[in-house]
Amino acid sequence: MTAAILSIGTELTRGELVNGNARWLAEQLTELGFQVVEHATVADDAKHIASALLRLCQSGPQSGPQSGPQARVLVCTGGLGPTSDDLTTAAVAAALGVPLERDAASLAAIEARYRSGKIARAMPVLNAKQADFPRGAHVLPNAVGTAPGFAVTIGSGPGATRAFFMPGVPSEMQHLFATHVAPAIAGLVKRKSFQVHIRTVGLAESVLAERLRDIDLGGARHTPGITIGYRASFPEVEVKVLAERADLEQARALAQGVAGEVQQLLHDVAYGGKDSNYPAHVGELLRRAGLQVALAESCTGGLIGKLLTDVAGSSDYVLGGAVTYANTAKHRMLGVDKALLREHGAVSEEVARAMAEGVLQMLGAQIAVAVTGIAGPGGGSEHKPVGTVCFALALAGAPTRTRTELFPGDRERVRVRTAYTALRLLAQAAQETLDARESAHVQQEPAS
Amino acid sequence: MTAAILSIGTELTRGELVNGNARWLAEQLTELGFQVVEHATVADDAKHIASALLRLCQSGPQSGPQSGPQARVLVCTGGLGPTSDDLTTAAVAAALGVPLERDAASLAAIEARYRSGKIARAMPVLNAKQADFPRGAHVLPNAVGTAPGFAVTIGSGPGATRAFFMPGVPSEMQHLFATHVAPAIAGLVKRKSFQVHIRTVGLAESVLAERLRDIDLGGARHTPGITIGYRASFPEVEVKVLAERADLEQARALAQGVAGEVQQLLHDVAYGGKDSNYPAHVGELLRRAGLQVALAESCTGGLIGKLLTDVAGSSDYVLGGAVTYANTAKHRMLGVDKALLREHGAVSEEVARAMAEGVLQMLGAQIAVAVTGIAGPGGGSEHKPVGTVCFALALAGAPTRTRTELFPGDRERVRVRTAYTALRLLAQAAQETLDARESAHVQQEPAS
Repeated sequence: MTAAILSIGTELTRGELVNGNARWLAEQLTELGFQVVEHATVADDAKHIASALLRLCQSGPQSGPQSGPQARVLVCTGGLGPTSDDLTTAAVAAALGVPLERDAASLAAIEARYRSGKIARAMPVLNAKQADFPRGAHVLPNAVGTAPGFAVTIGSGPGATRAFFMPGVPSEMQHLFATHVAPAIAGLVKRKSFQVHIRTVGLAESVLAERLRDIDLGGARHTPGITIGYRASFPEVEVKVLAERADLEQARALAQGVAGEVQQLLHDVAYGGKDSNYPAHVGELLRRAGLQVALAESCTGGLIGKLLTDVAGSSDYVLGGAVTYANTAKHRMLGVDKALLREHGAVSEEVARAMAEGVLQMLGAQIAVAVTGIAGPGGGSEHKPVGTVCFALALAGAPTRTRTELFPGDRERVRVRTAYTALRLLAQAAQETLDARESAHVQQEPAS
Repeated sequence: MTAAILSIGTELTRGELVNGNARWLAEQLTELGFQVVEHATVADDAKHIASALLRLCQSGPQSGPQSGPQARVLVCTGGLGPTSDDLTTAAVAAALGVPLERDAASLAAIEARYRSGKIARAMPVLNAKQADFPRGAHVLPNAVGTAPGFAVTIGSGPGATRAFFMPGVPSEMQHLFATHVAPAIAGLVKRKSFQVHIRTVGLAESVLAERLRDIDLGGARHTPGITIGYRASFPEVEVKVLAERADLEQARALAQGVAGEVQQLLHDVAYGGKDSNYPAHVGELLRRAGLQVALAESCTGGLIGKLLTDVAGSSDYVLGGAVTYANTAKHRMLGVDKALLREHGAVSEEVARAMAEGVLQMLGAQIAVAVTGIAGPGGGSEHKPVGTVCFALALAGAPTRTRTELFPGDRERVRVRTAYTALRLLAQAAQETLDARESAHVQQEPAS
């Protein structure tokens, strides 16, 4: 079953905006089991909109080598606003050869939206246009904005295309797709595939592939119908387990089974599914372990704290920290000995240790992580090249651990890798705390 | 003069990647004066590639209402890699009806690249394919990767289309476009327009438009041929001054003249041109003013420090700071009086002042900014709703200034607005220091 995506907007054709809507819709359609054959983007131009529409549908005449793939489902965004350059609805009516008709219910809904607390004024005259639809269209009410969407059928019989039109505002588009479009088209595909996403942090794509060699294509334990894929999204890599079978339920069971094996093989780096977020995962481990964290950041300049506190509710486990970018800050804020800085240099495991222990004590935290390194582009030397970063993890009542890494990449990549490595150290320590508690709990149980 | 963009890659049609290349190319082509009539994206499928190619060119038969706009220049990316799913070159040859031919110079360049220090091994057999081109193609050497690009002419006479093929890796694509494509096509357009970009921080689009009302369309001081546009890119807004005239030089002079007026009208919020970066701009002001900065961050959790230290060389003016997320951190790290916290609450101008003065003194800085607020979604109250943020700016030897803002939006937007407001406070203070120095200098000069 084929689908296509048509994006409408001069701000897109001129390159003023990246087309995030097309990516989002393509992912949704692919997950529903559609083969997305084309994304097309045209300007707010009635003639171009109409021609793209007819071309992408099956109803157009087939005209030799330059006729492209044809779509049974067409999903369109943009050009439904109230202003004179919003031409999509009129262009659709023209392409179908039908007049526009005003929908009383939609007009009332738009007027009500303006009167309500959210906007609280009379509807501008221009907005009445948003209640006009091509005759015969099915209206898709919009609960989160003024522009309703609509659906029309182009062509007839088994070759007809169902076309959906939605506003270009991402939140409204996503709402209309989930509420109206996905339910209307899900039944068109007899899905026979299922994909499980496993997010990982800490290993490169090639290393992950090596770990999964046995169960991947050509490996001794490979299951027919299974394809393992990788998607790097710096600094993470998503592993995708795709199963194809006679029907959806069999595919789902197979995918989930193999995904379980993948998770075991990647137990130290796999942390969650498609919608997981690593800083939130680390925070959840800290919360469960009952650890309140303090940070001492040099080369990351606040990035680790920013990532941890991006998560709502992080005040439950983040106390705060010191951004000690200059040596004087390391000394004045965290009491790092000037002799230590002189002797070993600011980028050393000794200084990292002093920073972690200093901030742990200063904030009365149970766990602290410190980073000090050379993010570049300047500041490198033969012995400590750009990308050298020293880490220390301090736990109340336990010896502090240190390590040094040499990261590739530019300033931004070194800083992001540094922050994620610090988060991994926190996650590992929190997991060990949880494991130790679990093991103590088991040992305390009476033998039966 | 029309142009179109064809993106090739199954990872794009499936929505695994956002199409940043199309946006970048559209912006470049628009700036060169082309009208970009369509972006199309198809999978790594030889038949779909060939049909999209012929359709977008002027050579295809014109076939009724579904034939789209035709492009005189076609810019294509993707599918030039060494693996079996890289099909672009073969599809182009098939569409043109010509064989593939191996280019000896390109093969030697690829082999040399593998032998060189960067990769340092023999060229894999597969990569030889990257030296194959459709007969008659013009090769575009690639200095930053293994895949050369190429150009072909489709059709003949005045209706012919010049088509360019480049790899999908953004850095390689951008290099090839700048080196080979832009110089080859710039002469096709007799440019009569010129656009100046002015970046601003601190005011909403509607407020900027109000400020520019007199010189915009319909205003008393509007210049014919001038269009003023706005592009919001949270938390910034870019103002674009587009001039159209009889030739490029006249347009450039007009655009630059009106842009000067715009900059005067927006003097307090305009900070730079197209490629400017606000944290770097603020850093430059601090550097010129000779001010070393300390930060005290509560609700931003390190974001202000992260933004300032994203900039290479920021160690010249960033000393560091305290991330005092918990009240205990405000007290223990910055000496904020517990009574003050109890009496006024952590989100108060009094506490912000104590944080800024505390960190200024602790780090021996010349300037410090402190923020404390409620980013949400929880933590709001009737008197201090979510979005309430208190700021303090401390300068050595001057009274500390405080203010309170109520920001709209979700947690992320509140945090970003807070960080940018803090950066603006630093920029204003640095500018005042520079102005005072300038004025003192002028006063000290002997009267002539």
